[in-house]
Amino acid sequence: MAQQDSATARVFFTDSESDADLYYLTHFLAGDPIVYFESGGKRELFLNDLEVDRGRKQSNVDDVHRLKDIADRVEERTGQRPGRGPVGAAACIGEIARERGVRYLDVSARCPIALADALRADGFGVAWKPDPFVPERALKTADEVEKIRGAVRHTEAAMTAAIERIGAAEIRDGGLYEGETTLTSEEVKRTINRTLMELGCHPYEAIVAGGDQGCDPHDRGSGPLPANLPIIIDIFPRDLTTRYHGDMTRTVVRGKASDEAKAVFEAVAAAKAAAIAKMRAGVSGRDVHAECNRVFDERGYKTEQRDGRMVGFFHGTGHGLGLAVHEYPGVGQADHKLGAGHVVTVEPGLYYPGIGGVRIEDDVLVTEDGCENLCQLETVFEI
Amino acid sequence: MAQQDSATARVFFTDSESDADLYYLTHFLAGDPIVYFESGGKRELFLNDLEVDRGRKQSNVDDVHRLKDIADRVEERTGQRPGRGPVGAAACIGEIARERGVRYLDVSARCPIALADALRADGFGVAWKPDPFVPERALKTADEVEKIRGAVRHTEAAMTAAIERIGAAEIRDGGLYEGETTLTSEEVKRTINRTLMELGCHPYEAIVAGGDQGCDPHDRGSGPLPANLPIIIDIFPRDLTTRYHGDMTRTVVRGKASDEAKAVFEAVAAAKAAAIAKMRAGVSGRDVHAECNRVFDERGYKTEQRDGRMVGFFHGTGHGLGLAVHEYPGVGQADHKLGAGHVVTVEPGLYYPGIGGVRIEDDVLVTEDGCENLCQLETVFEI
Repeated sequence: MAQQDSATARVFFTDSESDADLYYLTHFLAGDPIVYFESGGKRELFLNDLEVDRGRKQSNVDDVHRLKDIADRVEERTGQRPGRGPVGAAACIGEIARERGVRYLDVSARCPIALADALRADGFGVAWKPDPFVPERALKTADEVEKIRGAVRHTEAAMTAAIERIGAAEIRDGGLYEGETTLTSEEVKRTINRTLMELGCHPYEAIVAGGDQGCDPHDRGSGPLPANLPIIIDIFPRDLTTRYHGDMTRTVVRGKASDEAKAVFEAVAAAKAAAIAKMRAGVSGRDVHAECNRVFDERGYKTEQRDGRMVGFFHGTGHGLGLAVHEYPGVGQADHKLGAGHVVTVEPGLYYPGIGGVRIEDDVLVTEDGCENLCQLETVFEI
Repeated sequence: MAQQDSATARVFFTDSESDADLYYLTHFLAGDPIVYFESGGKRELFLNDLEVDRGRKQSNVDDVHRLKDIADRVEERTGQRPGRGPVGAAACIGEIARERGVRYLDVSARCPIALADALRADGFGVAWKPDPFVPERALKTADEVEKIRGAVRHTEAAMTAAIERIGAAEIRDGGLYEGETTLTSEEVKRTINRTLMELGCHPYEAIVAGGDQGCDPHDRGSGPLPANLPIIIDIFPRDLTTRYHGDMTRTVVRGKASDEAKAVFEAVAAAKAAAIAKMRAGVSGRDVHAECNRVFDERGYKTEQRDGRMVGFFHGTGHGLGLAVHEYPGVGQADHKLGAGHVVTVEPGLYYPGIGGVRIEDDVLVTEDGCENLCQLETVFEI
């Protein structure tokens, strides 16, 4: 017999601070796991006594219930009080499902095994769906685009402050100085963080990585910054008012860049331009990514392992951006078809120890006939 | 046949920024999911090309491998290249397990269902273990206690700055003013955040909630702060250098507190003192929690639902504190036996709309014969 929509529910038991899907569906920010149950077109939250008042005020779901009332009914029926962890939550979700005639539960790939095992043991069919689990979240409304644009403006303000501070540093003995003090990655990050906090953003930990540190794209950078070598600055704050993100990277050289570094910079800028020129609704992210590889291939930049580490271009070209810093769709090896309303980063990079790492990143809104670059900040290499 | 230790592995596929267990086991900070495999006493990480160099430098596991090498062997054997999500990770984990003769995998209750389902479909026994999944993390070493102490010092600095700003505000028409401007929760949080950032801490979003806002313990507070009513200030930063947390709450009244509010404050202070007096190795967190309830009962403070919302004392007395803000053990209704080396919060509170909310929170180290209060900041109500 075909599975009926009315007998299937979309279920969450997680916190909405870390789970962007759940926040998107509820507009309710919870640091601890909450029960979300959606069936027959009705979206319901079940909250503990600490959260229920706030949930009624702040969330936009159809109904907010006391989880305690459900737990009471479980206890009446089974003689056992559900605990507060995932097994207790499963008992409550089972009760909610039975009351609504639901036997099949759809969960995200991230659903905790403890919850799924308990629900299956209780006789429910639990199936996980691959990302995007809440596909409607990937295509941004005009309102969401404005929120991302706002976050991008703040990102640019922090980037400008960082570049100005590096640009004002004195060059001595291959290092950067402010008076007698060396200018460090940590100090520039402090400038970034302070700027973002004043603008109501959560900064996460930005990357300010100079020289060979910049060749490891996940090294966030530490210690004295070098003169005459590329410094990668990657900033990806969350606007705390809207919860949307910006994500931008610039690479600068304080002083004089080597000819090799300049050529790398030109190649990365050309790859970014080629990717942006390719981007439009209907194109696969894979084809956009291929543009970057084509530019690098044409200019002879190889991606390979040297002395046990990767060099060249060894990450994706970009990723979706919104309530999460990384979200669907990818702009890389996967065949994700771009649609009008996707907001994605475009961030090719080249990394060669000795020369340094160069990455440039903007955020673009995919449209029917191309894309709109949400970033306005110019890209300057030598400062 | 009995399950052999050598044939069972402890496995993670998650990011170590959000998963404190994984960070504890590896000392490697990764924002994206990484594969951790521990069997026969050997701890191994499998990282993508973006992370593998940094992993070798920064982690403290026994071996760091390229995940790509495992994926190559999966592809050789099966003809299919594993993808980057949980299903691909499961294929790699299966390969790793087979190479080590492991058939049973222990995972945390938070293990993603997609990973577990794929591993089970591949013939592995996957069992989740309840928290604490990494029990050794709950008992802090002397070094860890010093790191928490450091985070607590920073927490106190931010608390002091917040209280000073509120204390310096002028009182007019029942509100707080700085010159012509009302003093808001947001402004005081800005002071807290700025102080914490300067000290190298990640502030999260502190709570600064006045009057009835403070009666909803998860309301973080917004808008103008009231004079003559309790203002709850709850700060729980992460020290970014050590990744350990502090967690403190003070409640202040700028101006004159009502007699009812003073009595509530006295009751909460007495409950906190009673809980601390009870705390020592061997005692259950439940018995410490009962001390708070006893104090409130004796003074006639009822916990109940009034007009559809909870009033009184309706949360736990405390929780473990360390790499996570909330961790094992609980000091509440659950029967968690306290041990020497546990660091827990003690944070009773009473919440009555009309009077306001009062919560006081310190962090203590449980010892054989009592506990050491890691917090030094005095508790002043009227300022």
